[in-house]
Amino acid sequence: MSHQIAVIPGDGIGQEVTPAAVDVLNALDVDFEFREGEAGDHVAEETGEPLPEETVELARESDATLFGAAGERAADIILPLRGVVGSYANVRPAKAYPGLEAVKPDTDIVFIRENTQGVYAQIESQLTDDVATLTRVVTREASRKIAEYGFEYAEEHGYDNVTIAHKANVMQKTDGLFLEAAEAVAEERGADYDTELMDALAMKLVMYPEDYDVIITPNLAGDVLSDLAAGLVGGLGLLPSANVGDDNALFEPVHGSAPDIAGQGIANPSAMILSAAMLLDHLDYDAEAARVTDAVETVLDEGPHTPDLGGDASTEEFTAAVIDRL
Amino acid sequence: MSHQIAVIPGDGIGQEVTPAAVDVLNALDVDFEFREGEAGDHVAEETGEPLPEETVELARESDATLFGAAGERAADIILPLRGVVGSYANVRPAKAYPGLEAVKPDTDIVFIRENTQGVYAQIESQLTDDVATLTRVVTREASRKIAEYGFEYAEEHGYDNVTIAHKANVMQKTDGLFLEAAEAVAEERGADYDTELMDALAMKLVMYPEDYDVIITPNLAGDVLSDLAAGLVGGLGLLPSANVGDDNALFEPVHGSAPDIAGQGIANPSAMILSAAMLLDHLDYDAEAARVTDAVETVLDEGPHTPDLGGDASTEEFTAAVIDRL
Ligand SMILES: CC(C)[C@H](C(=O)O)[C@@H](O)C(=O)O
Ligand SMILES: CC(C)[C@H](C(=O)O)[C@@H](O)C(=O)O
Repeated sequence: MSHQIAVIPGDGIGQEVTPAAVDVLNALDVDFEFREGEAGDHVAEETGEPLPEETVELARESDATLFGAAGERAADIILPLRGVVGSYANVRPAKAYPGLEAVKPDTDIVFIRENTQGVYAQIESQLTDDVATLTRVVTREASRKIAEYGFEYAEEHGYDNVTIAHKANVMQKTDGLFLEAAEAVAEERGADYDTELMDALAMKLVMYPEDYDVIITPNLAGDVLSDLAAGLVGGLGLLPSANVGDDNALFEPVHGSAPDIAGQGIANPSAMILSAAMLLDHLDYDAEAARVTDAVETVLDEGPHTPDLGGDASTEEFTAAVIDRL
Repeated sequence: MSHQIAVIPGDGIGQEVTPAAVDVLNALDVDFEFREGEAGDHVAEETGEPLPEETVELARESDATLFGAAGERAADIILPLRGVVGSYANVRPAKAYPGLEAVKPDTDIVFIRENTQGVYAQIESQLTDDVATLTRVVTREASRKIAEYGFEYAEEHGYDNVTIAHKANVMQKTDGLFLEAAEAVAEERGADYDTELMDALAMKLVMYPEDYDVIITPNLAGDVLSDLAAGLVGGLGLLPSANVGDDNALFEPVHGSAPDIAGQGIANPSAMILSAAMLLDHLDYDAEAARVTDAVETVLDEGPHTPDLGGDASTEEFTAAVIDRL
């Protein structure tokens, strides 16, 4: 069955790592039809709008979207796109790879980040020139849904250690509801779990990342804690992510557009290629997903490495090596 | 001049480390009159209220307060107390000590955390059984005030590296206002500074903590990032903090009541004694503050150590060693 895949490279190194991921997908025996959409600061400069309506439509009608990176206007691109694909779960694995320098080599954690609510509903008011408010919204439905996804994910992937992150001691009603809903899901499923205050969890992740497998978190907590975990494994360069909805999904590296190295052909495409592997997995090409992941891990282990990892390979050379090992 | 100091040990190890800090202060040539107040879960059990009105009054009329730790009801104790002393700046140094195990031994960062607004205003509504909201409030006045404090602090303490943390790409109006106000303060002062998104900062703190000196942050960001930094230096056990207001202040360790080791006389009182040193500094006993800090650092370096640091000294033995080195 043919799948239509929207490809939105975006800004900066997104323009370099996205074609790399498409090359890897094209080297597999899968029936994908790629259609490219534009978005980014360079689009905004021409039209005033960083995310054209055609690109929104493209993402909406495709089976899945590959998104590269965005620059200054990232929030105005990626947040609507997450909405367009109906994504409620942002899945962010943070894993240290053997042979690469990591602050904490034992890190292997999957963050299951709520992707619709909290401060990301962006309900803000400028009450006066000197006072602004933001309304953080938490619903039982969205909280149950992310918890169900998280416990299901843990079960399917053979993880038995699930932690629910929250700040219900201060946000007593909103995170209180999130926590209550998530705990109810765990109890209905008869699943074991721990809960952690997000601040205490930040400390424990730095000290004992090996104690955690799957972490279910509210939106902003997941944003911060998954970046923290990226630091533990050596930076954002290697982290893929999936934005999963009921009928659609978007896959993107956790890193940004890296304007400092953009245009030089030296960006590390690992996170983007691993995001493409998550796309394969999502469309039930499990074997192909594993082949891609294994190939990336082999190249990360044996080289060649891009400059961010101390090597001098180009994006193209790294990608060719991955395709070689498929 | 005699100063009245409120002493609120609170719960758990608060009952053990607070007297240790008072012993150290009593060993100095300072004119303090200590008055003890009650608060904590054990008080709530008897009266239903974790923070009695007498304790609130005591903190209000004292020149400064030493607070130990609180348990389950921590938020219902420490948040009102921070309000009572009019504290707008939460000062949290995170420093690795030579000789002690740390994930990142080069860490030496002072967080200047906004202490009045953001989600800590605790304006929440349970709209229905299934929907709750929280209103996050940001004012120009409070944002300017914390920025002024932060830049002043950096200048006085000889730090030239100041970072303003925010999430203005998503919380565009609220953190936008925070950022705009803080940047205006920097520009009026002619001070250098950087800005960082709080998620990117979480990653960079893990990887390159040596790049940061003073970090000015919104309330919840400061809560999480300072705990993260605690992880970098070996845990909350060693981190003191000051809640500074215009006419009053409260000093507390960053750690909690540690129910797992409470009552055994083995808690590490370093964070509490270092908080007492911050109190001395605040009341302009600069020389005494330095003496206490140096004595704690010497004992941390040479031992004896409490069990959390691999030793077998009791809280009392550690405290006696500090007093010995004054
Ligand atoms: C670009 C930004 C809006 C986004 C977020 O906050 O979710 C990014 O930090 C991420 O984590 O994907
Ligand atoms: C106990 C809790 C309310 C408090 C906070 O969130 O400020 C604590 O985590 C801290 O950092 O002092």
